[in-house]
Amino acid sequence: MSVLSTQSASDSARTATTASGNTPGTAGVDLGPAAALSCRECGERYPLSPIFACASCFGPLEIAYDLPAGDPEALRRRIEAGPASVWRYAPLLPVPADVAAKPNLNPGWTPLVRADRLAAELGVTGGLFVKDDSGNPTHSFKDRVVACAVEAARAFGFTTLSCSSTGNLAGAVGAAAARAGLRSCVFIPHDLEQGKVVMASVYGGDVVGIEGTYDDVNRFCSELIGDPAGEGWGFVNVNLRPYYAEGSKTLAYEICEQLGWELPDQLVVPIASGSQLTKIDKGLKELIALGLVPEKPYRIFGAQAEGCSPVSQAFRAGHDVVRPVRPDTIAKSLAIGNPADGPYVLDIARRTGGAVEDVTDPEIVDAIHLLARTEGVFAETAGGVTVGVTRKLIASGALDPAKTTVVLNTGDGLKTLDAVAPTAGPSAIIRPNLDSFREAGLAS
Amino acid sequence: MSVLSTQSASDSARTATTASGNTPGTAGVDLGPAAALSCRECGERYPLSPIFACASCFGPLEIAYDLPAGDPEALRRRIEAGPASVWRYAPLLPVPADVAAKPNLNPGWTPLVRADRLAAELGVTGGLFVKDDSGNPTHSFKDRVVACAVEAARAFGFTTLSCSSTGNLAGAVGAAAARAGLRSCVFIPHDLEQGKVVMASVYGGDVVGIEGTYDDVNRFCSELIGDPAGEGWGFVNVNLRPYYAEGSKTLAYEICEQLGWELPDQLVVPIASGSQLTKIDKGLKELIALGLVPEKPYRIFGAQAEGCSPVSQAFRAGHDVVRPVRPDTIAKSLAIGNPADGPYVLDIARRTGGAVEDVTDPEIVDAIHLLARTEGVFAETAGGVTVGVTRKLIASGALDPAKTTVVLNTGDGLKTLDAVAPTAGPSAIIRPNLDSFREAGLAS
Ligand SMILES: [Zn+2]
Ligand SMILES: [Zn+2]
Repeated sequence: MSVLSTQSASDSARTATTASGNTPGTAGVDLGPAAALSCRECGERYPLSPIFACASCFGPLEIAYDLPAGDPEALRRRIEAGPASVWRYAPLLPVPADVAAKPNLNPGWTPLVRADRLAAELGVTGGLFVKDDSGNPTHSFKDRVVACAVEAARAFGFTTLSCSSTGNLAGAVGAAAARAGLRSCVFIPHDLEQGKVVMASVYGGDVVGIEGTYDDVNRFCSELIGDPAGEGWGFVNVNLRPYYAEGSKTLAYEICEQLGWELPDQLVVPIASGSQLTKIDKGLKELIALGLVPEKPYRIFGAQAEGCSPVSQAFRAGHDVVRPVRPDTIAKSLAIGNPADGPYVLDIARRTGGAVEDVTDPEIVDAIHLLARTEGVFAETAGGVTVGVTRKLIASGALDPAKTTVVLNTGDGLKTLDAVAPTAGPSAIIRPNLDSFREAGLAS
Repeated sequence: MSVLSTQSASDSARTATTASGNTPGTAGVDLGPAAALSCRECGERYPLSPIFACASCFGPLEIAYDLPAGDPEALRRRIEAGPASVWRYAPLLPVPADVAAKPNLNPGWTPLVRADRLAAELGVTGGLFVKDDSGNPTHSFKDRVVACAVEAARAFGFTTLSCSSTGNLAGAVGAAAARAGLRSCVFIPHDLEQGKVVMASVYGGDVVGIEGTYDDVNRFCSELIGDPAGEGWGFVNVNLRPYYAEGSKTLAYEICEQLGWELPDQLVVPIASGSQLTKIDKGLKELIALGLVPEKPYRIFGAQAEGCSPVSQAFRAGHDVVRPVRPDTIAKSLAIGNPADGPYVLDIARRTGGAVEDVTDPEIVDAIHLLARTEGVFAETAGGVTVGVTRKLIASGALDPAKTTVVLNTGDGLKTLDAVAPTAGPSAIIRPNLDSFREAGLAS
């Protein structure tokens, strides 16, 4: 029985004309409750297959489900008895029911940190929480989305996992492919920092540096998908994107379950492509529709770095479209100048009574330090963006400090050490004796 | 009722004469089932207090418990219903019953990875698992021990958390103190790599570089403990060491629970000071004594880097004492030339039918790559040591490949990127077109 879908998958699904030569096969695909692909713009439906754009209108495709109907209590108990990973939500994801038994990285079920000391500094009285995704296997939320893409790759018979990446995603794909026993071949700009290249290539897959920008890398990957050279390859963020993107819903599920099956009043979410924010909204709506949480209003806030703030600029200007920018910020993992889901993010922020805001690079660094010294969470620059934006939204009155607020940290400070290196040094250098120590002024 | 203790705490406990001036108070200390401190050498008992050496014989002190007696099933259910952190084992640790409600990093309950692909490469047929502690809050097992030290610090009224460290521990202490709202001041050699200094200082505590070696840092900390300049300071690995060390027992508890409340047949554990290995043995013995696992023989293997292998040298030579060495290895987190618990490690390896073995730096690097490409786990050099030693022990016949084997990875590869940087680079650099890609020989 279908709760959220209004059409059955077989009625209207048609053969996708955008399916490319590298589709090994889509017959008998078992991706659990996933029933079809559906165009976000025109609603056209397609059978589950490795396609990502509507043949009619070129709109983005997303998963339509036959979600479990019936007793919410039974579903809640089933989830609570599940594994301590995203797979506890397998009944709500495009994955087979036996997913947890397959070799994969089992990401998710990361801490929701009650951040009382940060709350005190920010003046939040209604309860402040940090959803800290740095504990994932490769230390970013990317493990969630890649895990879903791996299941789609298996279902469609792909033997090589691929992606275009500026770093984090390449490592997540390499690690997930290694565990799953798939080949991986990922594409990065040739001039990436050595540390990120090491992280991407240590898992033994192929890492290809492209002489060009990240945009060039992306264009090349799209070309490869239509070519025999890419036969049997699943690009997690291109032809597997509809499946991949659903992984972000698990952030919404976990936050609500960790709050005791309650919606938070307010969420602050970083914006790169905007996909994560839209999927969090989708996840919250599903929980309401399924009766897993009591319905109440919630507000979603988007966070960008000023050096790459096309969505917050559009929000402020009251525009519905997002004008591309050339990124220039230390928040590299958010530096997408032309965010595909920007318009949907604007919709959601406006519909829920949220906002989109941005902070400068120095504010990002300052917020990383603030979070670290109050809560012991060392965030990637993206976490500095959300914490910094939260502070700014409170100051402006856009965010209500008397309401329950969840701030996302989607990555790990170890990956962006350079951002804080200039502002994190020793308090003193002393000789190994008590006099020298007392002179430093740090004694009890 | 006491299961493992044969004396009651009050009978024989005497005032410790080694207690130093920085003891704020030990009356009414609530550390859960911890009943007293007990000398590992002579058995002398002392009240719970921030001391670490026996006044009679200078032997190391450890915690004696009044562990919960009675129905093992009830205790098992209580544990299983507990939080997804080390605090599920609060009834077996020197922490108050309400520990999980206090602000702390909640480490532990890290994945036990079923490593079938690694097993195939190593020829293990009896089941191979990697206990992957890189998922801890600051990405090493140190979070477990520091979490227990924080509870002792709170119980004794310390207001500053401190340690001597070569890197990992400083970060773990800084983070834990930040979350707990304690001041921290940690001591490191002045010439530590910048990355480690950043990781230690980002949490806002004081980080003091000492002009000297790690040994000088240690000596200075011992001096500071007896001085008014260190009044009210808890040094996690000095005056709080008996409490701190108990945190390693949780590795044993988790492994057995994750195996379905069964002992593994064989464990491969890294050796730095040797404390972790001895506490894992202690934890396994407790689980047997409490009836939480069926009793059966288990074998514990110790793993060192050849460049710092005093314990494996002693093991091979058949000695009971460990002769100090000057460390020279890429496995920095294991580079303790004079391991305090070395003799106990030798005891345990011999008593259980295990062994102590070492591997060279190139073997460590090779093992890091092996684990990463088979299981998607990017280990710190210490993880390369255990995986490399496992391979060597199988080759020599010391480790039985037909038995269930658990290998520990105690840290994260992101912290020792330099070790693999020379051997982890891109497969190819190409121009952004299909011809260039096909020339690279990586196409489908
Ligand atoms: Zn359409
Ligand atoms: Zn003694």
